[in-house]
Order: sequence, then structure tokens, then C-alpha cells
Amino acid sequence: MKGLVLLAAHSHSPINYQANSYPFRQDSNWLYYIGLNEPDMVALVDIQDGATTLFADELSIDDLIWTGPRESLAERAFAAGIGSFLPLRSLAGAVEKKLGLLQVSRIQKDLLIPPLCRRETKAWLEGLLGLPGNALEKGESEALIFSIIAMREIKEDREIREIERAVEISVEMHRGLLLSLKPGWTESEAAARVRYTAERRGCGLSFSTIATQSGEVLHNHVSEARCREGSIFLLDAGAELPSGYAGDLTSSFPVGKAFSPRQAELYKLLFAVLEGTTAGLEPGKRFREVHKTASFLLAAGLKNLGIMKGDPEEAVEEGAHALFFPHGIGHMIGLDVHDMEGLGEDRVGYGDSPRSTQFGLRSLRLAKAIVPGMVHSIEPGIYFIPGLIDKWKAEALHDSFIDYEKLEAWRDCGGMRVEEDWLMTEKGPRRLGPVFDKSPQAVESARRGI
Amino acid sequence: MKGLVLLAAHSHSPINYQANSYPFRQDSNWLYYIGLNEPDMVALVDIQDGATTLFADELSIDDLIWTGPRESLAERAFAAGIGSFLPLRSLAGAVEKKLGLLQVSRIQKDLLIPPLCRRETKAWLEGLLGLPGNALEKGESEALIFSIIAMREIKEDREIREIERAVEISVEMHRGLLLSLKPGWTESEAAARVRYTAERRGCGLSFSTIATQSGEVLHNHVSEARCREGSIFLLDAGAELPSGYAGDLTSSFPVGKAFSPRQAELYKLLFAVLEGTTAGLEPGKRFREVHKTASFLLAAGLKNLGIMKGDPEEAVEEGAHALFFPHGIGHMIGLDVHDMEGLGEDRVGYGDSPRSTQFGLRSLRLAKAIVPGMVHSIEPGIYFIPGLIDKWKAEALHDSFIDYEKLEAWRDCGGMRVEEDWLMTEKGPRRLGPVFDKSPQAVESARRGI
Repeated sequence: MKGLVLLAAHSHSPINYQANSYPFRQDSNWLYYIGLNEPDMVALVDIQDGATTLFADELSIDDLIWTGPRESLAERAFAAGIGSFLPLRSLAGAVEKKLGLLQVSRIQKDLLIPPLCRRETKAWLEGLLGLPGNALEKGESEALIFSIIAMREIKEDREIREIERAVEISVEMHRGLLLSLKPGWTESEAAARVRYTAERRGCGLSFSTIATQSGEVLHNHVSEARCREGSIFLLDAGAELPSGYAGDLTSSFPVGKAFSPRQAELYKLLFAVLEGTTAGLEPGKRFREVHKTASFLLAAGLKNLGIMKGDPEEAVEEGAHALFFPHGIGHMIGLDVHDMEGLGEDRVGYGDSPRSTQFGLRSLRLAKAIVPGMVHSIEPGIYFIPGLIDKWKAEALHDSFIDYEKLEAWRDCGGMRVEEDWLMTEKGPRRLGPVFDKSPQAVESARRGI
Repeated sequence: MKGLVLLAAHSHSPINYQANSYPFRQDSNWLYYIGLNEPDMVALVDIQDGATTLFADELSIDDLIWTGPRESLAERAFAAGIGSFLPLRSLAGAVEKKLGLLQVSRIQKDLLIPPLCRRETKAWLEGLLGLPGNALEKGESEALIFSIIAMREIKEDREIREIERAVEISVEMHRGLLLSLKPGWTESEAAARVRYTAERRGCGLSFSTIATQSGEVLHNHVSEARCREGSIFLLDAGAELPSGYAGDLTSSFPVGKAFSPRQAELYKLLFAVLEGTTAGLEPGKRFREVHKTASFLLAAGLKNLGIMKGDPEEAVEEGAHALFFPHGIGHMIGLDVHDMEGLGEDRVGYGDSPRSTQFGLRSLRLAKAIVPGMVHSIEPGIYFIPGLIDKWKAEALHDSFIDYEKLEAWRDCGGMRVEEDWLMTEKGPRRLGPVFDKSPQAVESARRGI
């Protein structure tokens, strides 16, 4: 590769008008390569000699009054280990000095820009570079993207320490709720407690908390529904450190003091799938195989419960189990909770191997071999999605593997999921964070104390 | 006016990649006119006959699994009182059926679109309408904007009830912190508590909380600094109801059990400014005069303390007091915490009267007459901004009104502000929300209990 790489910091993202913005979150590639956690900056890196220039503006008197004293541009560049810095208005000139006249056709050929997740940032850059509207919508540089993935997917020790700290706070968020949630609370209140635990430690959330008694809706968030004895509470939430690194855990537990008999059967199975799947992790194993192991264990367990039938291995091959487990067994974790998802899920999770189009398996975000340094989630789930059950039943879909009659008794069981974060090392897998026992006994024992 | 008005709902706003989005916040004009609190919709209103069509897509099977069952398009249209509905892909055709071939030159002439605060929304609409990139950057319809302002600025009873409920929860957020903050907490922890109080009630925040011991930085947010006895804690925070209506309050109180003598002098003055300013509110009075009253009371008080000198009225005329009060005395409040700011601060706050360019006064967001139905904040502050003091002193700026020598003794006093939300009625002004005594005695009495 030759040419220039352009990295852009995020700007503030408006909620309902320009000056009322969401909490600032930096672009993850910027965090990884530059690190300065402030908006409105650009960095140009010459690929051949690595020479880097930081573009940003100095503090104005209005900034001083409204947002306070801040480091000078020189100090910020120094902090990022960058020797050269210029005001933002010099960006177009600096690019032209290196590349000659900048034409749209040279974007992603000589001026390489990683995918930017916000249209706002592109519009801002188009303005700074004097390019026409939508000029930065023209394609992406695969070479650049795969270089970034190759670096970011292997975590350095300092990154692993950060992620483990995020997991530690995430455990605190989960354990805190497990020990305190009372019947009668609203789901909102539960989510509020979880966020409070993160924020009082100076952390944010790595994604919008899922705190629900309707776990069968995979990305349900929160509601004003009251927690009712007899239902399962599903919490999928994680802390994000100020550095940007994420934790991501899921717990499922009874709102009351104990599981119902049916819930207990399902949770016992879910925990066995978790333990069986993580026991099979090893360096170099393809994650698609890990997903297959989890799917097989689940199908075999559902057969024991009479919900599925036939050969579990065949059922998984055909995708019949996906009625109860329509998502993937995990994803990488790092500066993004689905790490690098903005660079393209297939590029990050599949490399050049193809992605399945089969229902369920097509939602697997990560399929390639897990090598030392990679961090990923393991998150089996069991769901009873009435709308989906009805649809499949009406079509008699996979009826050699699913006993739709027996299933009726379970259709109101909702959904449950457990999730842990794992690191692969040369010596094998390691669960990140402090011990957090998810066994049925441990969960019920915690709930008996409420 | 004739033609079509196009309203657009917000889409999800990405944090660090497309699928990881900030909490959804609807566009405020959409909330006001259409009300449906979901993303990715468009409404077309024919100005001549008021005929309205809702454009949105039906639930897909993936939506069912990931985000759960949802009302059909017909049900959503019915809920919004709209009789006609079509899928989003029909939007361009529907516009052309009414207006003929859509050209960029007709935007804001025959197809009127209120300002959209997110570039993302514009890019999405450009795509739906088959327009070139940046087509929606071409100007704004003043006629449409002033029509919206005329409606939204006068609050109906149902809106006032919502705002008052938001203020009520905001009072709970403030009083909760006033009664509980302990020396040794981090500022983050204080902000986390405040948010928790809002979220457990099913509310969000109407803006990013300012929770700081450096109140002299006007829009400082939070830090990991520990709360130290001897400093003043400034909390500027408000609840946003699920309906979108906002509260906005500011409190200032000692981290310890009492103000220091200097802090007590300043807080006594600040409270007198608040009381004197609100006592002067009356229907039809220009808000610029309200700002002037507050400025005069402040300058007179600072003269009593020896910090200012000369004639306070003259000092205010010259803008000398703005060293200590560089912002405006208030802004309107409604579906946005700075209500309708996305429509243009000057249009909303000034109508067709000009805005001052004088330092301080130029930051006044609202200057026009306050008529019955308007809701606004009153938020005097006193700040000692070392960087600004040094700059003015070096330039001997307004040295006939400022005693820079005496000021030295106060330069480390930081900043304090108090803020209330007021409604104008035919009978006069009314403070919204429950009684929340901000007097020095009440504040110190609350803090003595910590």
C-alpha cells in the first residue's frame, strides 16, 4: 500500500438540536491508533514513512467559557506521540501537497479512509477536503480495512487488562441486580440500577441495556412493565471504560425466589450448553464449530425435554434448532462491544470464508478460527418466540425435528440467555473477570436472599 | 402557503457502529405534530387541505425476532389520527403525484421541510426522494419555520401538565442530591445518582447533566474529581418524560455542611437576583428586560461586595457585569430543553428584532415578549473564570466598573447558578413544579443533615 490514511475523530452527535448532544463517544479506530478522546480532529498518516500529522483547532475564548481550559494543539499532539500538527483548515492543502489535486476518483485509492459510521463525519470531511456531497460514499479500501482488523483483533496485554476491568464492573452490574431486584419493580428501574452501578465507577454502558421479562425478543430494551413473580428476568448489559473497552454479559434469573419446574429444566439445559461450549474452546478452532457444539448440545437437551426429536446432529445441520436459538454463539469484543462491526461483520468474523444463509446460522457474527489474543463472548440462549413458532408450525417447517404438539406446553416460557467473555491464549481459553457462578444452584441461592 | 410539508421521524443514531445506537430520541417537530415515538417514518401534509399520509414499513420477520411484535402500519397511522398510509418506497411517487417531477429547486418552495438536526436524516430522505447528495442542504423555509414556532411556543394545558411533571421529577433529582452528596464522592457518582432518580421513574435526561465543582466552566459535565469540603457543587440537570417534554433546573450548594463566608455572600446575592428577577416577570414583558433586571441586580450586588464599582446601570449598559455573568437569564422550554433551538435560536428567541453582539448579551437565547402559554427558565449565575479575568485585566477592560484588585480575593470562588422553570399565564407568572426552597438558609439546613 502507498498513499495517505485519513483517520477522523467523531464529532458530537445531536439528540434533538445541534447543541444538545449525546454523551461523546470517540470513533474506535481513532481511539486505537490516536487515542485522544476529544471531538473534531483528523489525522493523516503517510503509509510509506509513517509520518503523521494531527489536524485540530485551538481553544477559542468561547470554548474557555463554555467548556473550560483545554490543552493546546501542540500538547494534544505530544500526548498522542504525533510530532506534526496543523489547524483543520490546512487539511485539504496538506493532502494536495502529498497527492496533488484531490479528485473523487482517488478516494480509497491514494487517500484511504476507514468506514465512518456517521454520515455527519463524512459530510464534515467532505467540507474540509473541498469534495462534493457524497464523495465519501464511494466504496471502501479492503486493503486498509483488513490491515486494521489484523491489528485490532489481536489484543495486547494492556487491552486485555482494560477489557477485564470492564468485565469486572459488568459483573458488579449483574450481581448487584441479581441480589436486589424485587417483584414490583419496573423493568426501567432495574435498568436504571444497572447503569448507576456502571456510572458511579466512572464508566458508561457499552450498549443500551436489555433488561426485560420478554427475553424472547432478542433486542428488547426496557419498559414500564412491573416485575412479576413467575417470570424470568433477562439482563444483557456491559460496562464501557473511559478508554472505550467493553464488557458484555447476560444473566437470566427468576423474578421470584426460585425457577418454576419448567424454567428450572430450561435453565439447567442452558447452563449445560454454556459449560459444554466453553469446555470445547481451544486455540485455532473455528468459531463456527463452537457455534455448532452449542447448537448440538441445545438440540440434544431439547430432545430430552421432548420438544425436539430425531437426530440432534441432523437437526442442527438442517437448522431446526434455530427456532429456539436464532442467533450466534458469540462475537469479538474490544473497543466495540461487537468488535469492529463498523468495518463489516463478514470481514471481521469470516475473513474470506462465506457466510451461511441458513436461518439462525446466518446471524452468527463470528465464524473464523479463534487465535491467541482474541476476546469474544459465549452466549447461548433458549427462546420461545410465539410469532415464530406459529409461522413455522403453519408451514410444518422441520416437523421431523420439532414436536409442535409438545412444544405448546412451553410456548409461554419466554427467553433466557447467559453470556460470558473469553480470552484465547497460547495455553487455552480463559474466562475474563472475577468468578460469577451462573449455575442454577448459585442463581437460586442468590435469589432466595431477596 | 401551498404545497406539501414533509416531516421526518428520527432514525437510530449510531454510537460506534450502525447497530449500536444511542437511546432513541424522536425529532421534536415530529413528536409535536405526529406523536408516534418510533424511528424511520415520514409524513406528508398537503397544506391546502391538510390531507396527511404516513409513510413507514411493516414489520419484517427479523424485526419480530430482534425487536419484537409491533403495531401494523395501519394501526400506527390510526393511533396518530392519520387516515392514509403507504410504504416508504412510495414516498417519491406520492410527492411527484402532487407536485410533478421533483427538482432540487422546488425544495423549500413547494416541498417544505423543517430543519433536520441530523445529516443522517437528510441523507436518508435524499435517498427516498431520489435527490442528489446535499439537495436538502439548500436553504430553509422561513414561512414554515415561523408557523411552527407560533404553534409550539404557546403551550397547551396538556403540554404544561407534562412539563410540570418533568419539573417535578427534576426537583426530585436535585433534592435527592442536595440531601445525600457526601465529601469524597466523585462528580461522576453524583451525576450517576441524579440520572438514576430520573430513570427509575421511567424518564431520561433532557440534556447531559452538569455535575461539577468547577461551575465557572459553564457547560462542564462530569469528571472523576472527588467532592471536597469547601467547594461549591453545581448541578444543572433535568428530566425528560417519555413524551419528550423537559424539565431544567440548576442548584448550587456547599459540598460540606455550610458555605464559607465568601460563598455565603455570593449565594445570598445569587438568590436575591433570582427572587428579584422572578418578581419582575409579567405578561407581555420583553425577556431582554428580564435579563437586564437580573444583570442590574447582580452588578449592584457585586458593587456592594466591592468587586464592581461605578453606576450599576451604566455597567450593565456597557456589559461590564458579563465578566461574572456571561450567559443569558433563560430560554424557552418544551419538547426541547432549549425549546425549538433546532429551528434557529434567533427566530425562536428574537423573532425579527436584532440580537446584540455585546459579550454576554449576545448569549441571551430569548429576548422577545413573554406571552401567556410560554414556558421558560430563569437562571442567574455568578462566575469567576480565571482565564477570562486575566484576559480582561490585561486589557484593562471595563476597569471603571471592575475593581480588578479587589477581585483577586474572589478569583478562586468558582461558579454558582440557580435555575427554575416558569410559565406565563394571563394572570401572571407561575413557578412550575413543587416548592423547592433555594434560599441560603434552606440549602444550608439541607446540607447540615448529610
